[in-house]
Amino acid sequence: MIRAIVFDAYGTLFDVQSVADVTDAAFPGHGSTITQIWRLKQLEYSWLHALMGRYVDFWQVTQEALTYTLGTLGLTADARLFDEIAETYNRLTPFPDAAAALDALGDYKRAILSNGSPDMLAAVVGHSGLDTRLDAILSVHSKRVFKPDPRAYGLLEDQLGVRPEEALFVSSNGFDVCGAKSVGFRVARIARISPDALRQALQSESPPTPATVFKALRSQQETCGAPADAEISSLAELPALVRALADEPARAS
Amino acid sequence: MIRAIVFDAYGTLFDVQSVADVTDAAFPGHGSTITQIWRLKQLEYSWLHALMGRYVDFWQVTQEALTYTLGTLGLTADARLFDEIAETYNRLTPFPDAAAALDALGDYKRAILSNGSPDMLAAVVGHSGLDTRLDAILSVHSKRVFKPDPRAYGLLEDQLGVRPEEALFVSSNGFDVCGAKSVGFRVARIARISPDALRQALQSESPPTPATVFKALRSQQETCGAPADAEISSLAELPALVRALADEPARAS
Repeated sequence: MIRAIVFDAYGTLFDVQSVADVTDAAFPGHGSTITQIWRLKQLEYSWLHALMGRYVDFWQVTQEALTYTLGTLGLTADARLFDEIAETYNRLTPFPDAAAALDALGDYKRAILSNGSPDMLAAVVGHSGLDTRLDAILSVHSKRVFKPDPRAYGLLEDQLGVRPEEALFVSSNGFDVCGAKSVGFRVARIARISPDALRQALQSESPPTPATVFKALRSQQETCGAPADAEISSLAELPALVRALADEPARAS
Repeated sequence: MIRAIVFDAYGTLFDVQSVADVTDAAFPGHGSTITQIWRLKQLEYSWLHALMGRYVDFWQVTQEALTYTLGTLGLTADARLFDEIAETYNRLTPFPDAAAALDALGDYKRAILSNGSPDMLAAVVGHSGLDTRLDAILSVHSKRVFKPDPRAYGLLEDQLGVRPEEALFVSSNGFDVCGAKSVGFRVARIARISPDALRQALQSESPPTPATVFKALRSQQETCGAPADAEISSLAELPALVRALADEPARAS
């Protein structure tokens, strides 16, 4: 039986592309490229720190990735501008259907389980107005690992007493789908761009824009682990999916 | 005192871009895009498998990444063509200066320490003719982890009795530089494209080609760990670097 709906934050409830307004204002014409490389390196650095056994919090990871990005592109930001850009991760725009989806979930516990640091998550959730719609915000920080390390997902049982099989985990991030599946969660993947739409974009652009390359790397079902149990194209479809799961006869395990 | 020169394989001794002839012959016009996405996902999947505690060997990782790449691009390969493309990782072209550099290293032990599976490494090294120039080929497989997990680098001491401070580790891969530094190796980074040359490419292409995006993501010094002790622009500069290190007075530790 499902007792809790657990959300990834960055890319799932909050749109990481929403930093592009600020990155483009800071460096006109470079906004999308900065946005994509920054996010790709942010993810990579979280995995590398975790693998090296050298955890630093996601705020440091976010800053390291921004430093790499600006340096690689040959762009110079003074400390004030650098901080202003980095801080956009604490004011990401929630996806437009996030609030309504959370409101329509009925009596389930709602939680975030994120790689973000406690401060980052408090800031972005508070800024979005989603805070009153969530029962818990769980940061990997207390475990000093990053998803998809299984210990990160163990937070849900540790802190809310909800076992993996009692949760529906919701993420748009393929690595997170694999990680959550690997520890026994039921998982809904948000597939915001269909394989066909992505292929059309790739075929119509020569060469593809950085934003399309980003989608090619990050928006499709990964093949390094089990696929999600369900796919939805936006958070708006989540309440119906949750109702369908509730009506499902108990599965033989 | 340096006793051994230890090389990364993929991207350092062997050119991962050399698969592009086969990928482009299989899917004309898509060769470079396949090559870049395939390599990016291959690295990502190695880290994700390691982080999830679900090690599979690098041959499976390589195949999973190729499956993702072709699927994302909407390209279909039958089993024979798929295998033919995947097998190119076992016949990668060595960089043109690799053999001469290995020959010019004097009396140091020379080893590969790679994420590749034992079979993959035996194949690619044998095919290249570098096998007679190497004293040892160390695969992470026996540890069931991937670089940059510290246990992977421990292979050198386990198998050759060479302590980290007695080795010069040579890699073009930024994550590998950080990983090797984090366990105490002296590290030389091969910087095959300078920051200036990369910026010029990025500025002259709008949007940048997938090959340039790849370089922007993978060819520069990472900012998630300590930088290399030395940078060289190609393997041809390695013998002189090694001689300079040998002449260096012992460092206070």
